[in-house]
Order: sequence, then structure tokens, then C-alpha cells
Amino acid sequence: MTDRPQTPLLDQIASPADLKRLTDGQLTQVAHELRQETISAVSTTGGHLGAGLGVVELTVALHAVFDTPKDKLIWDVSHQSYPHKILTGRRDRIRTLRMKNGLSGFTKRSESPFDPFGAAHSSTSISAALGFSVARDLGGVVEEGLGDAIAVIGDGAMSAGMAFEAMNNAGALGKRLIVILNDNEMSIAPPVGALSSYLSRLYTEAPFHDLKAAAKGAVSFLPEPFREGAKRAKDMLKGMAMGGTLFESLGFSYIGPIDGHDMNQLLPVLRTVKARATGPILIHAVTKKGKGYRPAEVARDKGHATAKFDMVTGEQKKSPSNAPSYTSVFGETLVALAAQDSKICAVTAAMPDGTGLKLMAERYPSRTFDVGIAEQHGVTFAAALAAGGMKPFCAMYSTFLQRGYDQVVHDVAIQRLPVRFAIDRAGLVGADGATHAGSFDIGFMTNLPGMVVMAAADEAELKHMVATAAAHTDGPIAFRYPRGEGEGVEMPDQAQVLEIGKGRMIQTGARVAILSFGTRLGEVKKAAEALSARGITPTIADARFAKPLDREMILGLADDHEALITIEEGAVGGFGSHVAQLLAEEGVFDTGLKFRSMVLPDTFIDQSSPADMYASAAMNAEHIEAKVLDVLGVAQIGEKRA
Amino acid sequence: MTDRPQTPLLDQIASPADLKRLTDGQLTQVAHELRQETISAVSTTGGHLGAGLGVVELTVALHAVFDTPKDKLIWDVSHQSYPHKILTGRRDRIRTLRMKNGLSGFTKRSESPFDPFGAAHSSTSISAALGFSVARDLGGVVEEGLGDAIAVIGDGAMSAGMAFEAMNNAGALGKRLIVILNDNEMSIAPPVGALSSYLSRLYTEAPFHDLKAAAKGAVSFLPEPFREGAKRAKDMLKGMAMGGTLFESLGFSYIGPIDGHDMNQLLPVLRTVKARATGPILIHAVTKKGKGYRPAEVARDKGHATAKFDMVTGEQKKSPSNAPSYTSVFGETLVALAAQDSKICAVTAAMPDGTGLKLMAERYPSRTFDVGIAEQHGVTFAAALAAGGMKPFCAMYSTFLQRGYDQVVHDVAIQRLPVRFAIDRAGLVGADGATHAGSFDIGFMTNLPGMVVMAAADEAELKHMVATAAAHTDGPIAFRYPRGEGEGVEMPDQAQVLEIGKGRMIQTGARVAILSFGTRLGEVKKAAEALSARGITPTIADARFAKPLDREMILGLADDHEALITIEEGAVGGFGSHVAQLLAEEGVFDTGLKFRSMVLPDTFIDQSSPADMYASAAMNAEHIEAKVLDVLGVAQIGEKRA
Repeated sequence: MTDRPQTPLLDQIASPADLKRLTDGQLTQVAHELRQETISAVSTTGGHLGAGLGVVELTVALHAVFDTPKDKLIWDVSHQSYPHKILTGRRDRIRTLRMKNGLSGFTKRSESPFDPFGAAHSSTSISAALGFSVARDLGGVVEEGLGDAIAVIGDGAMSAGMAFEAMNNAGALGKRLIVILNDNEMSIAPPVGALSSYLSRLYTEAPFHDLKAAAKGAVSFLPEPFREGAKRAKDMLKGMAMGGTLFESLGFSYIGPIDGHDMNQLLPVLRTVKARATGPILIHAVTKKGKGYRPAEVARDKGHATAKFDMVTGEQKKSPSNAPSYTSVFGETLVALAAQDSKICAVTAAMPDGTGLKLMAERYPSRTFDVGIAEQHGVTFAAALAAGGMKPFCAMYSTFLQRGYDQVVHDVAIQRLPVRFAIDRAGLVGADGATHAGSFDIGFMTNLPGMVVMAAADEAELKHMVATAAAHTDGPIAFRYPRGEGEGVEMPDQAQVLEIGKGRMIQTGARVAILSFGTRLGEVKKAAEALSARGITPTIADARFAKPLDREMILGLADDHEALITIEEGAVGGFGSHVAQLLAEEGVFDTGLKFRSMVLPDTFIDQSSPADMYASAAMNAEHIEAKVLDVLGVAQIGEKRA
Repeated sequence: MTDRPQTPLLDQIASPADLKRLTDGQLTQVAHELRQETISAVSTTGGHLGAGLGVVELTVALHAVFDTPKDKLIWDVSHQSYPHKILTGRRDRIRTLRMKNGLSGFTKRSESPFDPFGAAHSSTSISAALGFSVARDLGGVVEEGLGDAIAVIGDGAMSAGMAFEAMNNAGALGKRLIVILNDNEMSIAPPVGALSSYLSRLYTEAPFHDLKAAAKGAVSFLPEPFREGAKRAKDMLKGMAMGGTLFESLGFSYIGPIDGHDMNQLLPVLRTVKARATGPILIHAVTKKGKGYRPAEVARDKGHATAKFDMVTGEQKKSPSNAPSYTSVFGETLVALAAQDSKICAVTAAMPDGTGLKLMAERYPSRTFDVGIAEQHGVTFAAALAAGGMKPFCAMYSTFLQRGYDQVVHDVAIQRLPVRFAIDRAGLVGADGATHAGSFDIGFMTNLPGMVVMAAADEAELKHMVATAAAHTDGPIAFRYPRGEGEGVEMPDQAQVLEIGKGRMIQTGARVAILSFGTRLGEVKKAAEALSARGITPTIADARFAKPLDREMILGLADDHEALITIEEGAVGGFGSHVAQLLAEEGVFDTGLKFRSMVLPDTFIDQSSPADMYASAAMNAEHIEAKVLDVLGVAQIGEKRA
């Protein structure tokens, strides 16, 4: 802790109320210290750095001007909320960010009354702010009271349809509502889309100094008490606007662009808005992601998410790794296949790095499409590419595919179009916690008629599944794989096309068969080793397919064993449920089978290491071993489970 | 068939190619005849009338100017595609619309090469058109070839986030792409949202006659061959535009507004666009829903969806009904509860009539929110209303809730906010077919931690469940119910608050227990009657809850019976799967239980009557009876199933 920055003024801020006593100059100093503290904290914890650094001044200004937590400050995505957490009574725990039992890397209602609405997925903040505004006007009662609602949303998040839906609704309702567009030209990847170009034009055409004059005018108009007069307020707000007709078309007043790092612009604008706003207002603040920390500013992703790092050099302290990540295996295999087949193309929703499609974009830019934060559009766009004779891969995180679920059903599955879904971050994901867990895709994909659903047990299997998906032209197909590094298995030179609906036997044993779907296979093998010490040799099979099921293999396993245990990195309703349905329909249960289905528990699991989260879920080797012993009626050491 | 209109010119049109030989005056006449034929057809079949009548001229003009099916004409939602079907080789079957084995009420790839991309849910058309445009440029190969891509989208559909996502992407890609905004100020309900006001301003500020001059200019510029020159084309297109900066902000050229019923505007504009367009273009056509048929024009919903009707009077031929619809029971119960609790409020996504919230909107307009076609926003808005101390009901069709699935997970379930989901159109829905089936919600809701999931067995149960949802404040709760009329049971005066997670016994029998979730209960009772003739009296229970399960009741049924059969109006992965998981974990299968789970089959079921669709699904009384006999090993009459 010797490296901690000197923060004399910040040390006096126990809660936002303390900011009210400070002069504007002191607030600027608090912002400076808050930036240093944020960098210091993230250097020890890792996490989302760049986004928080971009909103340090905004965070201070908002808490200084508004009355949180009565006023509802809603951070979109909320990976930029670390400075907010430091200011709102959580500084003492800020170096536990994203750790087990530590602070969440996102806002979270259960963590603080200053987090009125949690987030992690993007573009929900305007909807949430509108809900609070309406609840306030309808007489909703909450402990902290209901005041203003302020959404802070990035330009990338603004490109998502959901944000547009909320603007469209808010503009029509006309209620007082404040949206701060944090325009840093960078969501995670550099921005794409027409909206982004539009925003750039806005601040190219109206440089900040124009607004500085307007802001000064606003300052001269302060301090309180403000003279009344809605018209005058409206005129003044109008005078501060330099463009933004797109937002005005949607019923918002537009103010900006302003320099989001200049407290001399932020404070007067926010004070004026607080005093004067009647309807929905959008403040366009231009910021720099990674602001004030050189290694982040110059990084390609502006220090979006980092491991622990050296504060001086910015060098990240990553643990050495031998196995390639699943994501990179997907990306590399796809590029190799695309080299041989000009019909292969790829779609990502603002995650070229996270999904491994960066490689594809570099090698085949004309066949790689980053549609922005737009999963709904991305899925249907991919469906039409397939209808147009292409072979699209739609690469999304499991948790974000939930955003495009209707499109998977309506545009892909019902039309039986051969879209290949590469579902990354399947299962529990670690530090990003419950909001990013890929728990539900097995269920929501396997119940779709005509969908083929695979899960890779290791990185070699993933390579084969990418090839299998490319070769599959009779309808849609999906393959899921987890975050992080592979199992370290030898990689085959050639990707094989797997036979659809056929699993593979791993080892033949007796009494109990364990049927694994996905990367729990490694834990199953470990459990089998431990069991062999007790004279139990389970049969192990890798299902590969949750749909269609390998009926012959599964019924054979049921026939040949006293017990059958399925395991998958997903909630009930997925692979195990389909196996149970098969066994039931075939009458296997009629005469008795010790069937168990190990699935994620019925709870949202907070952040920790993935291994630790799977321990919470009772899905590691020791739990598999215990399950086998339990189902076979073998007494366990210490009889813990009795 | 004596009432069929005289359509001499239309009779000569076997396919769109035949339109190419006609003069503009003859095309106007074709449009007139096409309108009469559409009215005549829908009068015998029922269906979506108003939307088709609004695009008759547009349909003729598009097929006359473009080269379908090589050019991809994509109708958004596609309930307006009846005239299109008549022109594209399906006139001989147009009086089978929405019937079993008849034409679909929507576009459908399997039905015609002139339907390049099916639809039924809204706002997918721009994504689809962009996919075809990109596929064309990448060398995609399809049988009909790949030419221009044209999306026709209504102003209501344009308000959905997905359309905005697609515009944002299309504007950035800059590919030639034609979007026709069919602005009829009416999606199903009158339009809501800021976009709608914006569009109104556009055509208020620029009356049609201005554009008529511009269109004349375009005419004089024709016919072919056109002089080359991208700049000149651009200037000309610009000259035709009277506003539309919102669309220009997103990278589209804007043309309009034009009169969508005036062939003298439509034809020259489309020809010019076809000849000159380089990038994405939006043509703003103003139309009247129900145009040319007085009873539709004057109806509140402009003849959106009708039963069979008398062509002269417009009177609909509905079969008489005794039982109230589930939808109206929901609406009335909610209004009664809202009268006693000022915190109750309601959210619909452009379906105030369809969801029964019209009643709530009439009685408590300030507490009823139609957010537009915006399920993503609607769900999160409801979540924030709950966070703000209100008691929101979010009423959506099962199939449309798929659009807000991520928001249910991320904003409602993870935050454990008490949003009440009223899930209408659960199960198979009849004439709207596979795209509108509510097959998946049991699965995708029950796998969410903390979610309570109910299904009503009849309209009295629904009344209780609405009250139960209102009273439930510890987390989210959902209740599902089908389309159509109730079972005709006696309605209780008072709605009761049900105990969470408790089912109810219907009758006690022996050997086999049938555990029903939802409205199959009526069929189960019928099956039980038939079985009693064979001396079999099944135990019958109504689960009421798929989550949490009534463990005690279910384990008791398993203990007391040789066989346990679950039945639900949903796909595998839902109620039956949760029951199977419970039975497996409790070791019930270890010693044998004849367990079966009757679920929707693994196929999308085409339109027919709901009863007929459930026959296809093998879920009617006779199938339940057969299942019982089969599982008990009783020989059946004729041994059909041997």
C-alpha cells in the first residue's frame, strides 16, 4: 500500500453530501485525486479502467450538483462506476473490486442505495431513468425518496435499439428526465454505425469554445435563487445547444457538446439543467476514455478492461498461460475456414476482440461485420446473409445472445436458415459475475425446433465444432464454449466435421455413467480418478450434442448402468432435461434408473474465480465424486452429506 | 362466390412480369381491382385487412418497377402482404388465407420465391434487406439471383429499436438499399412515441403538392436510358426531399413525404430511385390504413384484423360466445385491483387492445403506458417502476416477450424486482401460426432464479392469479394464459391470493396421476371421463405453479401412483423438465416410476384452429387418454399405437 496516491481532499469525502461544501476549484481538485485513486485501485484489482477515468469529472460534478441517492443516478453498463463507488461510501472496499465477496465491478442495488438500478449489459439506463421519473410522478414510495432521474450513457450504448426505444417513449411522455450522453467515441471497440459519425459531426461543427461562452452566460445567471420563467429557462437551454436535431426530433432538448473533463463547463450546465429543466434533456458531453492515465489513453481499447498492472508503466500482470483461449481457437479456426470458403462471413455486436472476430476482421474485412451494440439486428442480419447464400457465423456472448432471442426464434429457427451461432462465455464467467453468466442458452436454444446445439469439451473439440458448423447447411447450428483458456490438450492439425447428433465415449467403466456436455468433462475425469481409488470406474461420455441427442448412446448408457448422471454448465431445462425427456418417453424410468442431472443451481452466483463459482454451484470434481457416491449409496468419508 | 368483384385487368396478371407491359394508367386500374379482390378475399377468410388495403398501390408500383423475385421485396410484419400474394401467383389460393393447409397470413419463404424473408413480428425488414444487399455484394448465390433489396416498414414498426439498429448499421455501410416507410399513423393501436410526432410534422410541413412538382421533374427526366452521373442523381434525389433530417443523420437519403396512394407519385419516385440510388435511401410514403373500404377506414383500428365479414356492411361474422376471453378477464381483474391500489400500473408494447390493457388505459390513463413496439424498453421501464415503489404489470404476448428476454433476466430477475408479467397468447394460437405461438416462455421464465411462474387452468384461476401477482412483492412473478375464450366456468366474485408454490387437487383416483399446468386441464378432464369407461380413474392435479414447484404434492403423487404424467402448453425444458429434475434429485426414478411429460412437439406447427394445432401436437383428450393407456400397458381399441 506504499504506492497509494496522496488524496488529502478526497480523504474528507465520506459521502456525496460532503461535496456540497466545496468550492468549484476544490471540486476540480477532488476530481484529480479521485482519478489517482481510481488508477491505484484498479492497478491492484484489475478491471474496467478506461471507462471510469473518462467520467471522473462527470462523477464529481453530478454528485456535487444533484442530491443522490434521492436523485437517481443511473450509470449505463456501469463499468465506469468505480469513481462513483469511491465517492459513495465504498472507498474502503474499492480494492476488493470484482473479487469474491468484494465490490461488484458494476452498480448493484444490494450494494448501496446510491446504486438505484444495477447494470452490466448496455443501454438500459434511459428506460430505467424514465421508470424512476414516472414512479416519482405517480407517487411511488422508496426509502431514499424519488427525485430527479439521470442516465449516463455512452455513445456506443446509445446505438442500441433499446436506448432508441426509451428515447422515443421519453420524448413522447415529456417528463423531466436528464440523459447525459458520454461521448467518448469508444464503447469497447471503436464505434461503428451512422450515429457515431453523426455525433462526431456535432462536435466537429461546434467546438467547445463556442459553448464555453454559453456556459459562462449560465454561470452569470447563477447563483440561486433562480428567477422563475419556463420560457426563459427554455431559451437559455436552447442558447446552449449547438446542434443535436436528431435528439430534438425525438422530443429531447439538446445541450452540447460540452467538454466532459472541464468542471467549468460541467458544473454550470448541470446546475442550470437542475434548476430549469421541464421535459427530457440530453446533455452531450465529450470525454476521453482512459483520460489522465497515459498507458490507457494510448491503448487500442483505451484501457477498457485490464488485469492488475504496474501503475507507472501500465504493464499488466497476467499469469502465464500455456493453453490458447477458446475465443482465439474459434477466431483462428474461422479464419482458416474462411480462407478456403469465400461464403463464410461473420457478425459481431460490438465485440470484435471479445469474440475473437478481430482476426477475421483483419484478414477478411469485407466479410466481417461489426453491427454495433445491436444483437437484435445482428441476428436477423445474419439470417438474411444466410438467405442470400452466404455462410454467416454470428459470434456473441451467451448472455448477450439473450438480447437477440426473438430473432433467433423468428428469423433463424422458424425459417430454418443456416446461421452458425458461436456462443462465447458459456457458463459461469468469473469476475463479471451474475450479469455476464451464460447460464440459459442451452435451454433457450435446445427448445427451438431444427436447431443443432453443441458444446465443446475442450479446445480441440471447439476446433472441430467450428468446422462442423461451417459444413452444416441444413438449418441453424450453435456451439458454446467458456471464457478463458483451454484445457491444454493437443490441438489437431485439421478440424474435422463431426457427425451431427453423435457423442463420443471417453472411457468405459461400470455401474455409473457420467454424460458430460461441455467443459465440465475435465472435472468429470478428475472425479473419475478419485473414484478409482474406491474401486469405482465410471463410464464417461462426451455428449457433444444437446440437440439432436445421441439417442443410441444415451439409451445404451442407461441400459448398461445402474446410474446415469448428466452434467452441463447451464440451468435446468437444457441438456439434462432433454435427456430426461428421452428416458421418460422410452420408458427407461419405468423400471428404475438412478438418474441425476447436475445443472447450475437456482440462484444468481456472485463474482469470484470461475473455479470458485463452480464450487458454489457444486459442479467441480469433488461434487461429481460425491454425487456418484451418493447415487450408488456408497458411504463417503466423514459422511458429510448424510 | 357470386359476390366476387369484376377484375378484368387483374385477371390477366399471372405474375409481376405481366405488370411490365401495362401503362401507368392500367397499373392504376390494376390497383383498383386488386383492392376489390383483397376486400372480397378477406371477407371470406377473415384476417388482416386494413394494412393490406393501405399498400395496394405501393404493391403494384413496387412489382411494376422492380424485378421481383430477383429484387428482394421484404414486407415488415407482412400482415399487409395479401395484395402482394395475389400478384405473385397465389391468387388461386387467396381464399385459404390463415386456414389449415392454406396460405399463411404472413410472408413465408417456403410458400413462394417472391417471399424472400418471412415475417410476422415487426421491425425485422431493414435488417433483412441489409443482409440481402451485403450478400449480393459478397457474391452470395441463390436460385432467383440477388438484385435490389427493398424493405417496406410501417411507422409503428420503425419505432422499434431493432429498426433503429438496422438503420444505424445500414447508414454506416453505405450500400444501396431501399427502405419504404409506410407511414399510416397506425400500427395496430394508434401510434405512440416521439418518432410518430416527428413524422407527422414532416408531412404537415411539406404537403404532397410540393412533391408532386418534384415528382413531375423526375418524370420529365425519364424514360430510359438515363444519363449517367452520380452527382446529378444525388442532386435530383435531394431535390425531392422536403425534410427527414433524422434519417439523414443516420446516413440515409430521404425522399418524401409522398402520397402512397397516388401512382403518379409512386411510379416516378420508384423509377428514379431504381435508376439513381447509390447508398441507402428512405422513401416516406403516407398511406391510409383500410384505404378504399369505408368500414375499415372508420374503424378505431382501421380494420387491423377482422373475422369474416359482410362486404357491404363490414359486419363481422363472429361465432357467439358464452365465456369471457382470458384477455378480458385479465384486463377487468387488473382494473378492479387498480381501483383499490394506486400503486398498480401497467405497461404494454403497442398492444393495448390485444392484451386487454385498453380497459386500464381508459380508467387509469396516467398509470397505463403504451411504450410502442419496444419490448426491450418496456420490460426495463417496468423494472424501474418497481424499483421506484410502484406495482407494474407488464402485459405482453408470450412470443413478443422473447424480444425482452435479456431485460427480464438482467433488469428484473437478477435485481429481484417485483414486475408482474401477464403473458398472453401462451401456447398455440391458431390462425397466426408458428410465428405467434407462445411455446417457449415456460422454459425461459422457469429457469430464472427467483421468478415465480404460474399458468391459469381456466378464467377463474386467471382472476386469482392476477390478484396473486398484485400481492406478490418479493421478486418477479409471471402468469400465462392462452388466446381466446375461457372454459365457461363460474367466475368467483372475489379474486383470491393463491399460496405461492401450491397446486390443487382436482380429483383423486388410482394408478395414474395427471399433473396439468395450464389450460390443458379441460382436455385432461375429458380424457379422464373416457378412461372411466375402462375402469381407470386417474388422479388429476392442477400444478398452478411451475416455479416454485409444489414439491410435497408432486412427490406425494409419485408415491401414490404407478404412473405420473405431466402436461403443459409449451416446449420441453419447462414445467415437465422441472418436475423430472425434482423426481431425479429425490431419487424417485431409482426404484421406478412411469413418468411421462407431454409437451409441444419439436416442430413449428402451421396455422389452423388451436384445437387442430393441439391435435397435431398430440395434446388433446384423445392423446392424453392414449398416453395413459400406453403407460399403464392397457391394450387400446384397434391397437393403433402398437
